[in-house]
Amino acid sequence: MIDAERLRAADRRELARAITLIESTRADHRLEADALLESIMPWTGNSLRIGITGTPGVGKSTLIESFGQMVIEQGYKLAVLTIDPSSSLSGGSILGDKTRMQVLSTLPNAFIRPSPAGKTLGGVARRTRECILLCEAAGFDLVLVETVGVGQSETLVSMMTDIFLLMLQPAGGDDLQGIKRGIMELADIVAINKADGDLLKSATRSAADIQQAQNLLRPRTTGWNVPVLTMSALKQQGLDKVWAAILDLKELLQSDQQWDKRRSQQASQWLIDDTREALYSTLLNDPDLEQELEQFEQAVVDGKLPASVAASRLVRMFHQSQE
Amino acid sequence: MIDAERLRAADRRELARAITLIESTRADHRLEADALLESIMPWTGNSLRIGITGTPGVGKSTLIESFGQMVIEQGYKLAVLTIDPSSSLSGGSILGDKTRMQVLSTLPNAFIRPSPAGKTLGGVARRTRECILLCEAAGFDLVLVETVGVGQSETLVSMMTDIFLLMLQPAGGDDLQGIKRGIMELADIVAINKADGDLLKSATRSAADIQQAQNLLRPRTTGWNVPVLTMSALKQQGLDKVWAAILDLKELLQSDQQWDKRRSQQASQWLIDDTREALYSTLLNDPDLEQELEQFEQAVVDGKLPASVAASRLVRMFHQSQE
Repeated sequence: MIDAERLRAADRRELARAITLIESTRADHRLEADALLESIMPWTGNSLRIGITGTPGVGKSTLIESFGQMVIEQGYKLAVLTIDPSSSLSGGSILGDKTRMQVLSTLPNAFIRPSPAGKTLGGVARRTRECILLCEAAGFDLVLVETVGVGQSETLVSMMTDIFLLMLQPAGGDDLQGIKRGIMELADIVAINKADGDLLKSATRSAADIQQAQNLLRPRTTGWNVPVLTMSALKQQGLDKVWAAILDLKELLQSDQQWDKRRSQQASQWLIDDTREALYSTLLNDPDLEQELEQFEQAVVDGKLPASVAASRLVRMFHQSQE
Repeated sequence: MIDAERLRAADRRELARAITLIESTRADHRLEADALLESIMPWTGNSLRIGITGTPGVGKSTLIESFGQMVIEQGYKLAVLTIDPSSSLSGGSILGDKTRMQVLSTLPNAFIRPSPAGKTLGGVARRTRECILLCEAAGFDLVLVETVGVGQSETLVSMMTDIFLLMLQPAGGDDLQGIKRGIMELADIVAINKADGDLLKSATRSAADIQQAQNLLRPRTTGWNVPVLTMSALKQQGLDKVWAAILDLKELLQSDQQWDKRRSQQASQWLIDDTREALYSTLLNDPDLEQELEQFEQAVVDGKLPASVAASRLVRMFHQSQE
């Protein structure tokens, strides 16, 4: 059993145990996890939730290592959660993460944890949302959710955070095409890392290019001009500008109620997505439908059956198998 | 009963009746519609499906009126379907559409039809996909699906077409921020309309700005540089460039099998989306759950219950109510 009182007293071991509980797929654990989550709700919602994304090698860990120390010195309590959809392939990355953030991981006001690997990305995101709640109940007032750019992970992270930071590295004009579809429009703040040494000039030019492109896109937050900042996580330069932009945006969001509105919308959407997903996975896992699913999909891909017809037949069969 | 033979003989009245059948929500009509759709599948899939979007007033109807006459002169048979999620509010738009395309609507090789208004946008899209199949079975080898930029309609249209055309009008640099989030990345071809008279200079400048932004985005189609073309639907200038770009892209898609791959992926995704949607709507329409749904949603928005917990409880209750 998790001790909710100890969790709320910012006991990091209890927090880690609570996360392990919600990671579990055992039915009795799920019920216990749901009860725990429901009981801690009054103490959640009070952190600033920041999403960070960037391709591997862009310097996210180095940024978080430096950034984390900076905000902890300012009195914040920082939790770092990472979503890496590929990590279930490469094995656990807990040690990996702690090695990546050597100083930060030793600070008493920091908590670092990779998100549980799930079979589906949606599943990973569900648990990460719950991890945010647990961290908040444990008194962490700054929660960083880090993700690499795989699949829909950035969209999911942007949907569970207040502010979304996109990290890029300097690149020639055409290389910017490597930026993933849709990602530019999720960003509230763009940080071009590695703006030091040989890459300084290239970083400045990239920032100007991206700023121009950003000006053509509608910002995620009304009234906010997405800043494109240059920085060096390694040399610890420019972190203050990024932090100042985060605080500016937080103030803007809170001043005109976009904050509450965004949080409410995220919660409603989360309910819809989870309900839809949970229902769909019952159908997918219905042993009576295994063969039909395969046959229908083949028929649809082969152009023998319209998808809408296949879908309504599948749903009818599903309801019959439930009766 | 719809006569599938007459439908296949390009009888436009039979096609119109078939569409009316699939629009119907009556259960017996649905079964008949499903049977009809299944029977015509062998004669579907052979058209070039083109999606067109642009805000109201950008000149979509004028473009389609001119463009339609041009391709029909070249020997094509053209069907035009429009998705207007707002039209269910303003009443039927059948007459409206025919008035908008006065010459085109009189040509024997043209068929113009607004998509049935559905309660949900997903529903509209489902029927539009089926309309495409019916038009193909009736021998139309060019299907235009037109939509205004409301909600997710562009994404849905891009998911049911081979080529997606974005129409914009000339605008000052900052006004381009009015372009909807995500829409630039759906486009295969961008056409800046109203490049005539006073607006010619502004159109050329807009095209350059947008081309620059497009170069920073990853194209939807590998190996394709999204062209940003200027044109005037009113003066019938530049339509040939747009048509040439469409044919170029078609050739590229067909030459390296992206065509088949895209069609298969669209079909699979359509099956998943429809199944998910059909299941979810059974839950939403379950009279036993009406109160619970409202209560759970309120609790989630108020931060009293985590969405994931609410979702799993709802799904459990739903299955119990089905037994």
